[in-house]
Amino acid sequence: MSKLTGRRSKKAGLSPGTLIYLGSKRTEEVKISLMEYDGDHVQERVLKKSEEAFPFKDLPTSTWVNIDGLQQVEIIEALGRHFNIHPLVLEDILSTGQRPKMEEFESYIYIVLRMLSFNEQEAKLEDEQVSLILGPNFVLTFQENEGDVFDPVRNRLRNDKGKIRKAGADYLVYALIDAVVDNYFAVLEKVGDRIEFLDEQLAVNPTPEVLAQIHDLKRSILFLRKAVWPLRDVINHFQRGEIPIFQPPTMIFMRDVYDHTVQVIDTVETLRDIVAGMMDLYLSSLSNRMNEVMKVLTIIATIFIPLTFIVGIYGMNFDYIPELRWHWGYFAVLGIMGIIALGMLLYFKRKKWL
Amino acid sequence: MSKLTGRRSKKAGLSPGTLIYLGSKRTEEVKISLMEYDGDHVQERVLKKSEEAFPFKDLPTSTWVNIDGLQQVEIIEALGRHFNIHPLVLEDILSTGQRPKMEEFESYIYIVLRMLSFNEQEAKLEDEQVSLILGPNFVLTFQENEGDVFDPVRNRLRNDKGKIRKAGADYLVYALIDAVVDNYFAVLEKVGDRIEFLDEQLAVNPTPEVLAQIHDLKRSILFLRKAVWPLRDVINHFQRGEIPIFQPPTMIFMRDVYDHTVQVIDTVETLRDIVAGMMDLYLSSLSNRMNEVMKVLTIIATIFIPLTFIVGIYGMNFDYIPELRWHWGYFAVLGIMGIIALGMLLYFKRKKWL
Amino acid sequence: MSKLTGRRSKKAGLSPGTLIYLGSKRTEEVKISLMEYDGDHVQERVLKKSEEAFPFKDLPTSTWVNIDGLQQVEIIEALGRHFNIHPLVLEDILSTGQRPKMEEFESYIYIVLRMLSFNEQEAKLEDEQVSLILGPNFVLTFQENEGDVFDPVRNRLRNDKGKIRKAGADYLVYALIDAVVDNYFAVLEKVGDRIEFLDEQLAVNPTPEVLAQIHDLKRSILFLRKAVWPLRDVINHFQRGEIPIFQPPTMIFMRDVYDHTVQVIDTVETLRDIVAGMMDLYLSSLSNRMNEVMKVLTIIATIFIPLTFIVGIYGMNFDYIPELRWHWGYFAVLGIMGIIALGMLLYFKRKKWL
Amino acid sequence: MSKLTGRRSKKAGLSPGTLIYLGSKRTEEVKISLMEYDGDHVQERVLKKSEEAFPFKDLPTSTWVNIDGLQQVEIIEALGRHFNIHPLVLEDILSTGQRPKMEEFESYIYIVLRMLSFNEQEAKLEDEQVSLILGPNFVLTFQENEGDVFDPVRNRLRNDKGKIRKAGADYLVYALIDAVVDNYFAVLEKVGDRIEFLDEQLAVNPTPEVLAQIHDLKRSILFLRKAVWPLRDVINHFQRGEIPIFQPPTMIFMRDVYDHTVQVIDTVETLRDIVAGMMDLYLSSLSNRMNEVMKVLTIIATIFIPLTFIVGIYGMNFDYIPELRWHWGYFAVLGIMGIIALGMLLYFKRKKWL
Amino acid sequence: MSKLTGRRSKKAGLSPGTLIYLGSKRTEEVKISLMEYDGDHVQERVLKKSEEAFPFKDLPTSTWVNIDGLQQVEIIEALGRHFNIHPLVLEDILSTGQRPKMEEFESYIYIVLRMLSFNEQEAKLEDEQVSLILGPNFVLTFQENEGDVFDPVRNRLRNDKGKIRKAGADYLVYALIDAVVDNYFAVLEKVGDRIEFLDEQLAVNPTPEVLAQIHDLKRSILFLRKAVWPLRDVINHFQRGEIPIFQPPTMIFMRDVYDHTVQVIDTVETLRDIVAGMMDLYLSSLSNRMNEVMKVLTIIATIFIPLTFIVGIYGMNFDYIPELRWHWGYFAVLGIMGIIALGMLLYFKRKKWL
Repeated sequence: MSKLTGRRSKKAGLSPGTLIYLGSKRTEEVKISLMEYDGDHVQERVLKKSEEAFPFKDLPTSTWVNIDGLQQVEIIEALGRHFNIHPLVLEDILSTGQRPKMEEFESYIYIVLRMLSFNEQEAKLEDEQVSLILGPNFVLTFQENEGDVFDPVRNRLRNDKGKIRKAGADYLVYALIDAVVDNYFAVLEKVGDRIEFLDEQLAVNPTPEVLAQIHDLKRSILFLRKAVWPLRDVINHFQRGEIPIFQPPTMIFMRDVYDHTVQVIDTVETLRDIVAGMMDLYLSSLSNRMNEVMKVLTIIATIFIPLTFIVGIYGMNFDYIPELRWHWGYFAVLGIMGIIALGMLLYFKRKKWL
Repeated sequence: MSKLTGRRSKKAGLSPGTLIYLGSKRTEEVKISLMEYDGDHVQERVLKKSEEAFPFKDLPTSTWVNIDGLQQVEIIEALGRHFNIHPLVLEDILSTGQRPKMEEFESYIYIVLRMLSFNEQEAKLEDEQVSLILGPNFVLTFQENEGDVFDPVRNRLRNDKGKIRKAGADYLVYALIDAVVDNYFAVLEKVGDRIEFLDEQLAVNPTPEVLAQIHDLKRSILFLRKAVWPLRDVINHFQRGEIPIFQPPTMIFMRDVYDHTVQVIDTVETLRDIVAGMMDLYLSSLSNRMNEVMKVLTIIATIFIPLTFIVGIYGMNFDYIPELRWHWGYFAVLGIMGIIALGMLLYFKRKKWL
Repeated sequence: MSKLTGRRSKKAGLSPGTLIYLGSKRTEEVKISLMEYDGDHVQERVLKKSEEAFPFKDLPTSTWVNIDGLQQVEIIEALGRHFNIHPLVLEDILSTGQRPKMEEFESYIYIVLRMLSFNEQEAKLEDEQVSLILGPNFVLTFQENEGDVFDPVRNRLRNDKGKIRKAGADYLVYALIDAVVDNYFAVLEKVGDRIEFLDEQLAVNPTPEVLAQIHDLKRSILFLRKAVWPLRDVINHFQRGEIPIFQPPTMIFMRDVYDHTVQVIDTVETLRDIVAGMMDLYLSSLSNRMNEVMKVLTIIATIFIPLTFIVGIYGMNFDYIPELRWHWGYFAVLGIMGIIALGMLLYFKRKKWL
Repeated sequence: MSKLTGRRSKKAGLSPGTLIYLGSKRTEEVKISLMEYDGDHVQERVLKKSEEAFPFKDLPTSTWVNIDGLQQVEIIEALGRHFNIHPLVLEDILSTGQRPKMEEFESYIYIVLRMLSFNEQEAKLEDEQVSLILGPNFVLTFQENEGDVFDPVRNRLRNDKGKIRKAGADYLVYALIDAVVDNYFAVLEKVGDRIEFLDEQLAVNPTPEVLAQIHDLKRSILFLRKAVWPLRDVINHFQRGEIPIFQPPTMIFMRDVYDHTVQVIDTVETLRDIVAGMMDLYLSSLSNRMNEVMKVLTIIATIFIPLTFIVGIYGMNFDYIPELRWHWGYFAVLGIMGIIALGMLLYFKRKKWL
Repeated sequence: MSKLTGRRSKKAGLSPGTLIYLGSKRTEEVKISLMEYDGDHVQERVLKKSEEAFPFKDLPTSTWVNIDGLQQVEIIEALGRHFNIHPLVLEDILSTGQRPKMEEFESYIYIVLRMLSFNEQEAKLEDEQVSLILGPNFVLTFQENEGDVFDPVRNRLRNDKGKIRKAGADYLVYALIDAVVDNYFAVLEKVGDRIEFLDEQLAVNPTPEVLAQIHDLKRSILFLRKAVWPLRDVINHFQRGEIPIFQPPTMIFMRDVYDHTVQVIDTVETLRDIVAGMMDLYLSSLSNRMNEVMKVLTIIATIFIPLTFIVGIYGMNFDYIPELRWHWGYFAVLGIMGIIALGMLLYFKRKKWL
């Protein structure tokens, strides 16, 4: 049940810092792309080997190396060795069930985020681990899968001659985090649409399938919370200026992302309450239906059971049943039964069952 | 589903500080009104262009510029540039899904509030973002829609020669926040009336429609909480004297608004508990009804099913059924059945089912 | 719905410090009573006008002015002006929906309490706002209604020559708060008795009326919490010695009231849990009853429906039904039906339905 | 309803420090016992009058005075006067509904504990207030009832020549608190046994009686929590070395009791969750039973109602019903009905109702 | 009920520090194994007597003594005496119901952990107490049972010539804690698999047995939480560098274990929410089934009861029932009944019962 708990146990008993990729192989091939820029220029390259990235480490400009796909452990290992990354960090990059966190080391900081997407066909939340390493003049990012969430940042690097190129590696990390958080809003909107859809279903036709879907949605929101709550603490550290690598001008932007994260959490909590309310509503609509069914049964049974008894009486074969001999007996009985039925109906009317 | 999550995703990937209005266009036309005052005089103007407000920035008197309607981004942009407002703030003014917050900048503070109203026809809570910017001698306010919540403040500015005109821009911000919070009490009263109405409905006739309405109310209260809780923290900052722009005399008044906010929160929480209790009550009244229905069915069935069996016996066509030949057999059977019915009724009486 | 939210909206848009009485007019006439005392003497007076109280402000002895009834705003206004009370405080005295709080001013402190009583006839909690103002040598108290909770304190002032007269105004405030908190214990006992009563009802005969009463009680406890929780924080301030107007000897007594308040909160929470448990119990006893009813119906139906079918068979009018011609056919069928009925009963016995 | 709220209201309006015993008279006669000891000797005495204890106050050795039974207020008063105990403390000793607390005075500290016992016959939790006063060289303990929880401590004083005699009064208080907390483990085990017993009952035969017992247990655990939670804070003060009267060597032992208390709280919370789960289980087993009952009814009714209809058809007295004249008509109808019944059974089988 | 509360009461009244083993005897024989190592060598020994371990205490190398089985109290006592362990610690080692904790003493620290395993046959969580004592150059570990969780650490000591041998006793303790926490991931995966299995069961066939199993799982998770939550605080102390015995290089590794623990807690909480959701789902699927059953019953009854009444009418024996004499009367009645049945079916169709 990798969805619920991951498969960390593969690593039980290994020495800390042993590198094993725990996720599923998502990308066909590992893709290493590099952007090197400063206020004046930008160059982009797709690398064949991680070694090609090494010389950039000592340039005065900023460099961003992005790895899509983690299945080739040796690439991460080589990069880690060259950029002086602690083995435990490399291990965490590959253990793709981490909760969002930030760890500060002497010459760099390590950030884990969860990148989310809502698969609308299956109405399921999918998530992926994104690791960021921010050094003095470089940023390394690791994704399990090739995605398009960072594309707008790439475009801004390519086109904007302004802020982002001049601002250095810490601003790039801000921009990447911001892209991830902005993406949460998109996911939340899809979840919101899904809720609206199920809400309508619930009003029209509350089948067990709708319940199952609400239940699935509830679980998705559970995972959403798990991804978002710890992120707030992470960004809070940046915003409060506790991490010297983030310079004051970037900190104002960090405050903005912090705000967005709090807003995401707020919305997640609201959606959670709404979905919980939907399950209650489903159950009570079930009770309502049951009540309605029972009323129909009771009305039919209560009217006809006594009447059936009466006709049963006159179906008895006793030699001497005086009424049977009366000429209008049959119609009299029909009339009496009609009156009884009417009386019953009035009684139900008064009880508001009709 | 703009109600649940907003439409922030429109902005995903844009550079921070890009100005796009996220709300729905509510007001026909953007209205810019300006009040300039000090202890001695007050002047009011409706501006055609935001540029007309620029000269007031450097007057020694206090100036309040109010914008109703945010669809014309260039107006906000022009104002922002002239009054030196940070692009991220302008972005937030236009992103109308913000939670209440306060941000301090070097020469001004930025405050976001939610203005609420309870639409009694549809029994729905509506809300709108109000942004306030307080500079040394000016206040800028931005509303999505033309409203009347600030009218009493305007009237006091026009008529009262006392406190409000002499007290400066920080007191004006207090007065505006106070107006918004006072408005919450009005909303809470309407919600309270709604609860009382549904409470009566619940006692008289607990239909599924009542449940749906309780459910809607529950959701409204959810949004109410979301608007009010963060406000407390915002005002708490002011009241504790952490924001130098608020002078001590205004701080006593801020303590008063703080009190009101806490009272609003208290009431919201109480209403929430009450509404939760109403859903429980609905469900149990449903169970009660079901019980009642079942009892009627059971009583009728339990009395008549055995009797119908008896009359069935004497409707059999066996050649030799001695009782059928007895002259008083019919009446004997009627009598026996009467006794059985009576016995059953007594049994139900004893079981307290009647 | 004044009960749930108050009618604060009457004041929306008014200038802060505007005095309007928000409560209902409870007392026939406003009653102003005054006690002036020191270690040696005590004098009591009933005042016609608030002006009569003014000279006492500057006496070296302690003075307690108590106002019962708030409908005459001018009395409060005159007192406030003479004793230098801030207009916002006077406003709060008249806005009778305040939560318990304490506000410190330069020369006096202002305390709001809720005085509770449990109306046993209607099983409803009633509450009233009590405002206390403690100055250097005077205490002003404001009640909505003439009550007897402060009588024991009056008696101690009249009779005890000891502590209370010598100890000054801060000790008097302690004594008054203590009287209010002691009164909570009385209210809790009545609520406890009510719970015990409903508990018995629940065991004997769980009617929907009992549920409605439990529900009402639940709401009462909700309001009880709302009155008591903030009080703890208020008294905690006193007990920790943060308020210089309370002298060290009084602080030990304040610790005692603090303890009592915590005990009240403890009990309120326990009662709340108990009442919540009672609603669960009601619902499950409802389910139990339903089960019992269903079992009776099922047993009756399951025994007689097959038998009725059998007698129906021999009531058919086919020309050739061999059994009908057998001499003992009737008795054989009766016997078979008896055996079937017995079998059914044994089956139910084994299933523990009987 | 003394169980739920106590009878504190007896004291409403009395001057603080007035001594009235609020508990029920449990012990026949008040018993005053005294132990005086140091590293070398121990002497035990049963006192007739509290005055006999006075001379021990000034001995260099440690003295423990234990009072069983609080109904003779004058004994407590006399002791209090001689040992300089604050009247509010004496009042608290007699007000036997206190929550656990610790109060520090200049020359002594006052500790309130709840001593619990689980009455297995009635499956009820009983509790009793134990007050401890620790002075420089004496310990006073007050119990409502003569109990055996302190006996092991007495025995250790009598027999152990080691630690306890040498360690002074603060260690004795530790030993007494430890005895009380150890006793909680015994109570918890009984509650645990009760849960296991009810758990089995629930599996075998979930009658309403079992529910009532679970409900009672739930309430007992409520009171258990109320007794244990505040105790943690009390002991935490000792353990953190904030109370100078406890010397460092005793503090390590206090840390041990603290651990035990946390463990007790942990277990109480676990038991609470377990009991809550049992109530859910009961309700769902009720629903299960209901389902089973309904299925039996539905199967019987659904098979026989159509058959009864068919036999009813051939019971009609129309002059011309061709089937009635067929020679094998009766058997044909029987066969058809058999087929219908079989079909129904197969249908139920497929629906997993059988 | 040792599972729920342990059997601590055995010790009630004993002097603190009295050594009694409270667990069940799990291992056949107590096994004492010793590893002594430094960067250059490692030696392993299985000891017959605890005395053989004594000389190692004063070696400059690191020594790890592991005891499997606690039933021979004298072994623990002897070790304790030689290594200067406080009697309360020895007592805690033997009282096998401790919650995870860390206690600092002058020359060593004492750590309690819970080692968990999930018995897949019985779907039950089993746990065991592991005690660690870390001195300057030695580590003592105590397990109730011989287990294989520490084997990977042993292997690394044997094989790795690197870090672990050079790093000293504090790193060994880290490695042991890491092994225990890694083991939690394995347990969580098994619990996750169990949840997935029950989830499927729930979808296919929600029998009461499934409910009972969900209920058991819920309880297991309760115990899981109890074992894991306090562990976080324990490790947090290490990670924050508050414990001088842990040297800075080890602290980075401790931060890693801390992360894992937080991740375990996160997952436990998620599983808890999921299992709670499953119980809700079970109950609603029960209601769904009930609804379905009721619908079938109602449809059958509602169609056939009126028809049976009609055939009953023409089964009456009145002398004069004109319809009976009509030649096509029988078929007319059959036709009418067919129409009624069809009408009913259409009605149910429209009501979405079919």
